Amino acid sequence: MSAVVAAVDWGTSRLRVWLLDEQGNSLAERRSEEGMLFSAGAGFKTVLERNLAELSAAPNLPVIICGMAGARQGWIEAPYIETPAYLDAVLGAAIPVPGNDRDVRIIPGLSQRKADAPDVMRGEETQLAGVDVLRRAGSHVACLPGTHSKWVTIEDGRVSGFGTWMTGELYSLLTQQSVLKHSVGEGSAGVLAASPAFASGVEAGLSDRADLTSHLFGIRAGGLLLGLGPEDAAARLSGLLIGAEIGAAERRYPATGPVVLVGSGLMYKLYERAFEVAGIEAERADAEVAVRRGLFAAAKRCGMVG
Amino acid sequence: MSAVVAAVDWGTSRLRVWLLDEQGNSLAERRSEEGMLFSAGAGFKTVLERNLAELSAAPNLPVIICGMAGARQGWIEAPYIETPAYLDAVLGAAIPVPGNDRDVRIIPGLSQRKADAPDVMRGEETQLAGVDVLRRAGSHVACLPGTHSKWVTIEDGRVSGFGTWMTGELYSLLTQQSVLKHSVGEGSAGVLAASPAFASGVEAGLSDRADLTSHLFGIRAGGLLLGLGPEDAAARLSGLLIGAEIGAAERRYPATGPVVLVGSGLMYKLYERAFEVAGIEAERADAEVAVRRGLFAAAKRCGMVG
Repeated sequence: MSAVVAAVDWGTSRLRVWLLDEQGNSLAERRSEEGMLFSAGAGFKTVLERNLAELSAAPNLPVIICGMAGARQGWIEAPYIETPAYLDAVLGAAIPVPGNDRDVRIIPGLSQRKADAPDVMRGEETQLAGVDVLRRAGSHVACLPGTHSKWVTIEDGRVSGFGTWMTGELYSLLTQQSVLKHSVGEGSAGVLAASPAFASGVEAGLSDRADLTSHLFGIRAGGLLLGLGPEDAAARLSGLLIGAEIGAAERRYPATGPVVLVGSGLMYKLYERAFEVAGIEAERADAEVAVRRGLFAAAKRCGMVG
Repeated sequence: MSAVVAAVDWGTSRLRVWLLDEQGNSLAERRSEEGMLFSAGAGFKTVLERNLAELSAAPNLPVIICGMAGARQGWIEAPYIETPAYLDAVLGAAIPVPGNDRDVRIIPGLSQRKADAPDVMRGEETQLAGVDVLRRAGSHVACLPGTHSKWVTIEDGRVSGFGTWMTGELYSLLTQQSVLKHSVGEGSAGVLAASPAFASGVEAGLSDRADLTSHLFGIRAGGLLLGLGPEDAAARLSGLLIGAEIGAAERRYPATGPVVLVGSGLMYKLYERAFEVAGIEAERADAEVAVRRGLFAAAKRCGMVG
């Protein structure tokens, strides 16, 4: 079986490359820290060709890309498509990157040009397109947890609205750079998710009157006064931030069926447990599988593969 | 007129020293970045004596201190006094620092040992004690803006409860370390406070359903999509964080009269305008005057001055 296309998820800090066969199955893959920030210095073409060479890709193998490589500060800008937008149309709008000896295209991101809720995404649109249940007729709500978590409403194959919560980034900043770094320890997602401190954090965050910034300092004071240990402090902080996200997103995007949780690894575990605490039904879609499928669908729609 | 006591406000990152006459007026002062973090390395006694020598203080001049010098990681620990606590009792509980050739004492901080709202303060108790209106009979609500803003309820001279909002620290982290650093510029407090973007940020933050973490990313998207400039982005972010603090604090500590806003400089300007937007009556007390008066009152209560 030989590869028909290379699929590339080029994020801010991470790069993932797969060689796909004609059914879209992965034949080989590479993952590295050569994200947009690194590649802007090293050269996008250089980084791409080096990775393809490591995978022994044919010199004429076409390449389909999603993510931050299409940002203004990326390889070339793939201008946002405005919502409401059909996912199929977005996949079909991948723009060619000139100056390559092979066919290289980048899928555009989505923008929401609303004065009271401006928002953008790059990469998540491709994940969404790769989740079967979201392509079905009817209304769906999807949650894509991460550094910048996205919540998206999709109606009959069309993205109708979305919002971003800086949950993962706030967690990193607060645990690494703020006064809370003295209070919060490390813990695997499994341990954090199982902690009662996580559940109570989620409940506090979910509350309609969430008051997040005050709850944050309570983690430090809880360590000083009530013996809150570093692992429970991490669980509490994680629960608070995720709970605040879920509470606000649920109010903004009320779901009629289960929320489609597009995640993988650590993040998925935490959100799965938080949904349980919140009493919200969730249906899982693996984020890695989703992005690969979405990239393959784009390659087909653009006529890059037969 | 000669000095009867040196008053020291020893914060996490800043040090302020005043020589006070027998009425508590300032005869001379020094301010530097020799806060707790610096002094823990350089030695608290060394730093103090160097500053006193620069001010030509007499070798037997007593010294009264408030702030982080009394923290566990400070000079010596002045254990928290639990709320409810009379301000006069707190001032009178300053503990002597051994190993000095002069009388040196540190005022303890306050703790709130509540399972659902643990909290601590060091330094603010002394500011509160230095505000005349808060010493009067009746119920008062005070707001002390800063890196970690405090809201405090005081009843008949007794601190009955308080809460901390990490407003200033979040603003620093978000503007310097997060994805928002690309969007947010610098602006003087006067300019920020006057900006319509500040007022609309305050309004969004005040909302009962604040949804703060999502509004944050909207600042980045607003720059990309709607031409939100760096200064307006700074004003918006500042407004959002301060609005969220005021909204939550007002719900937790409903005031019957004006809120006493104990602030100075830039912070005071921003909070004054935010109170205006929120329609909350505020009464100003200068934070620097307040801490000096509180320190002098403590020196008197401890019998350090006649």
